[in-house]
Amino acid sequence: MQHFFEKHEATLNKAIDACKKRYAWTAYVESPSSKIHGKDIPAAGKHTFEQLLGKDYDLQQPGEIGRVGEEISPYTRQPLGVSYPKVDVEQLYSAIGVAMPSWRDASVETRTGVCLEILDRCSQQLFENAHATMHTAGQSYIMAFAGSGANALDRGLEALAYAYQAMKDVPQSAEWERAFGGDGNAKLTKHYKLMPRGVSVAICCATFPLWNGYPALIASLATGNPVVFKPHPNTVLPVALAVSICREVLSEAGFDPNLVTMVADTRDEPATMALLEHPSTAIIDFTGSPRFGQWIESHCRKAQVYTETAGCNSVVIESTDNLPAMCKAIAHSLCQASAQMCTSVQNIHIPANGIVAAGEQVSFDQLADALVHAVDQHLADPKMATFLCGTLVSDDIYQNIDRAREAGKVRGKILRDSAPYNAEDYPDARTATPLMLEVTQAESDLYRAEHFGPISFLIKGDSAEHCLHAATTDARECGAITSHVYSVNEQFLDAAQDAYNLAGASVACNLMGMPINFAAAYSDYHVTGLNPAGNACLADLAFVANRFRIVQRKVMCS
Amino acid sequence: MQHFFEKHEATLNKAIDACKKRYAWTAYVESPSSKIHGKDIPAAGKHTFEQLLGKDYDLQQPGEIGRVGEEISPYTRQPLGVSYPKVDVEQLYSAIGVAMPSWRDASVETRTGVCLEILDRCSQQLFENAHATMHTAGQSYIMAFAGSGANALDRGLEALAYAYQAMKDVPQSAEWERAFGGDGNAKLTKHYKLMPRGVSVAICCATFPLWNGYPALIASLATGNPVVFKPHPNTVLPVALAVSICREVLSEAGFDPNLVTMVADTRDEPATMALLEHPSTAIIDFTGSPRFGQWIESHCRKAQVYTETAGCNSVVIESTDNLPAMCKAIAHSLCQASAQMCTSVQNIHIPANGIVAAGEQVSFDQLADALVHAVDQHLADPKMATFLCGTLVSDDIYQNIDRAREAGKVRGKILRDSAPYNAEDYPDARTATPLMLEVTQAESDLYRAEHFGPISFLIKGDSAEHCLHAATTDARECGAITSHVYSVNEQFLDAAQDAYNLAGASVACNLMGMPINFAAAYSDYHVTGLNPAGNACLADLAFVANRFRIVQRKVMCS
Repeated sequence: MQHFFEKHEATLNKAIDACKKRYAWTAYVESPSSKIHGKDIPAAGKHTFEQLLGKDYDLQQPGEIGRVGEEISPYTRQPLGVSYPKVDVEQLYSAIGVAMPSWRDASVETRTGVCLEILDRCSQQLFENAHATMHTAGQSYIMAFAGSGANALDRGLEALAYAYQAMKDVPQSAEWERAFGGDGNAKLTKHYKLMPRGVSVAICCATFPLWNGYPALIASLATGNPVVFKPHPNTVLPVALAVSICREVLSEAGFDPNLVTMVADTRDEPATMALLEHPSTAIIDFTGSPRFGQWIESHCRKAQVYTETAGCNSVVIESTDNLPAMCKAIAHSLCQASAQMCTSVQNIHIPANGIVAAGEQVSFDQLADALVHAVDQHLADPKMATFLCGTLVSDDIYQNIDRAREAGKVRGKILRDSAPYNAEDYPDARTATPLMLEVTQAESDLYRAEHFGPISFLIKGDSAEHCLHAATTDARECGAITSHVYSVNEQFLDAAQDAYNLAGASVACNLMGMPINFAAAYSDYHVTGLNPAGNACLADLAFVANRFRIVQRKVMCS
Repeated sequence: MQHFFEKHEATLNKAIDACKKRYAWTAYVESPSSKIHGKDIPAAGKHTFEQLLGKDYDLQQPGEIGRVGEEISPYTRQPLGVSYPKVDVEQLYSAIGVAMPSWRDASVETRTGVCLEILDRCSQQLFENAHATMHTAGQSYIMAFAGSGANALDRGLEALAYAYQAMKDVPQSAEWERAFGGDGNAKLTKHYKLMPRGVSVAICCATFPLWNGYPALIASLATGNPVVFKPHPNTVLPVALAVSICREVLSEAGFDPNLVTMVADTRDEPATMALLEHPSTAIIDFTGSPRFGQWIESHCRKAQVYTETAGCNSVVIESTDNLPAMCKAIAHSLCQASAQMCTSVQNIHIPANGIVAAGEQVSFDQLADALVHAVDQHLADPKMATFLCGTLVSDDIYQNIDRAREAGKVRGKILRDSAPYNAEDYPDARTATPLMLEVTQAESDLYRAEHFGPISFLIKGDSAEHCLHAATTDARECGAITSHVYSVNEQFLDAAQDAYNLAGASVACNLMGMPINFAAAYSDYHVTGLNPAGNACLADLAFVANRFRIVQRKVMCS
């Protein structure tokens, strides 16, 4: 529908401008505060969420052959009791095949308009989706509304800005005329048509299902491809809510809602391989473990594959002019969302002989103490701790913590042990405070893998240069999504930035007074694609330009 | 060197405009005529070529461990006697590694300027390169100067226009500022750096070595990647000449010439796998057989792979208003470059009950006769035949013709047999006129593969619709780079265009009075990437956007 495009055209243009200049901007309201929204809207969102519990989720998809659903709230430890269609993939793909042609043949503006409307309606759904995200992914309410909500929607819009530009780079037609030898002028009218690649499968992770979900959806849908979501069995509801919006908007715009569908599954009976290996699957967006991501990159050769996995995000501390602020910033990353974010810090590299902070020598042990203290400070107020840490997405995280604790005891020492904290309002919540371990670089086999959850290593290096060398080697070889350096030494800072960049990693320097995990849509190129933590950037031109192809027809003018 | 960019900036801007609007344009002189160039320049080019014969080619590359060279002129059947470095790949890659950093760190304008200068100097080298192309690839002088020369250089410039735009889409820096909660404003200065992927290997084919060679070279080099050419053992000299220019311009601009190198090999001791499997190889551009192309697509997962291979290009004839002009146009494709072009027609689908031409019923046999006659007409004048057909790239083509002739005898009939023709000035030239076979659709296993060389099939279908169905099915399943339809029936023409496009193939309608094999840089999207004849389009944004990645550094402002 052209009117959706016109309705949101200013937003699209602003997003394009923001991508070009990369300033701070958001299209969606980031705060759930009732000061902004009033009391009714937040309450209505909560009510809508609660009405979904214990029921069949209303998703009328073809090929339904049963119902599945095994979500358990990390806050209450109670099953949500929501069931979703279990679908026969062949029947679903048949229906998708029927849906494709009219979407393929729609204009760029029509498809872009539908995508803009989807994003807009998803932004109006953020309250209920935040509650759904809390009680599946385990995020805090604020994180679920902002990070998994508005910030993720911004990334969807960012992907749309690129997709729109890449498509508009192809003109619809051209007149072409030239002479060949003595035959007179040859005149051709040419038409160029954008062709989608085929079915696009978006595999979402448990902790931040829509973080890459919105960009994958929008990048593929805008360029003409139907999208099949495969949510993690732990975290289906936030995805289902977004899928419902897509289907509603598509229907209103006169398209087949089966252009966006969802295949829910269970841990015991996963559906992922059936989707990955389906001959009609032409695009795969994957967010999840490095191991599975690399398997997909290696094996799914018939499809365009875009991955964001994980690495071992590092901090190198060489010096600082503000020890408390630096420690507070790093500690924030160790606590935020219980370090279950793709941008959470895991490995903190510190010279054995300590650092200079605001002109004073600070020993390794003093710095370690300061970091532990800063974590404790973040946790001091139960309400703030709940907002900051949220809960653990699954019991597996406890096992990760236990394994790391045991390894830490043997191979280093425990600087701060992990324990549950009392989440406000949710006495049964699955929680854990940060486990902080001290090790030397000799234990690199331990810390060079991702330890998912609130687990961090303070790694003693012989010197700041050794720290930097280890951290950047790890980024190159094991992957990194974010990397940090703290230094007031310009020479070291330059060397560190070069070293991280040459390792294929982006780097942030001296971040304080802000959540250092924050990745800004329109401004930060999230994931470089140059190290093992992912093969794509969300978003840049490369993320969208190969999701469609161009066919042409040329006709000789008589 | 910034001055190269300034020197050629107007040309770049014109290329960008031509890509956006896709009108007819060329940056390079297409005709070798002495009316344009005078007599001295063409003569000097020929002399330069002749001076190269029987000698070691002067290419000072690291890792030289011997000399190889087995080129034989298809015109004289005599060895060229030119030898090229046989290189140790490890030593070469080490030297390339040394060359990379300064090129990586050069500005977009500097790299683009060097590429523009390379293209410009290659355009001044077209006379000697045309002779080199004649006496290796076997092309006619005119084709070697235009198709393999100016037209191919245009495609290099087209790739550069896209690469430049994709790189300039990324700003160099940004100021970013926003508030998080009550902590005051966070201000970051961000820098974005383009990072090349690594060594780019360009595997060239024997018949048109630089057709995709220039675009691959320029797309990778402009985006910061060193390029290693792997020419076909039959056709090294045209590539060596281009490599020499690259090295000369790079040196003049203050860069390491090892940013562009060449690995020559022999049929008995091929070097391709060592390049494909080298861990530093990050990009592969392949032109050649579908079988090897698909192997590379499936197996070289660590690299970005761009292929142009081959399919079975088709014509569907439903009706025409100008039988002689149509037959002349199709026959031209069967003759041009002895049908060794990626755009040559192989399969001509004709309804069993014939067609209507300018209101008159024309039977299948009459149309077949007219096509045979049109071929004979193109060959009537030996001078024109030589210009049009050139020679055969290797003796293998005779075997292809023999095999097709035998199959045709058994499974259909020979409408026109192939035989050598007398190439003007070259009594020993390896030549063959078109073999034209009549078969029915029952022989689809025969004609659904590429028969490389002057071999074509007139395929009898039950109806025009059957012809179209067979041709488009073959395009989808077996690949197609060009497809043609002749019809004066608007309804059929629309259906045909839709059918080809939906098969992932581009289509040309009613082309006459021009060489129908012609693919226009800046206007035609050459290769769709949607059928087995290649996975990439040369050129579009997708051809360039993933040859580099983006790393960033952000620093908190104090």
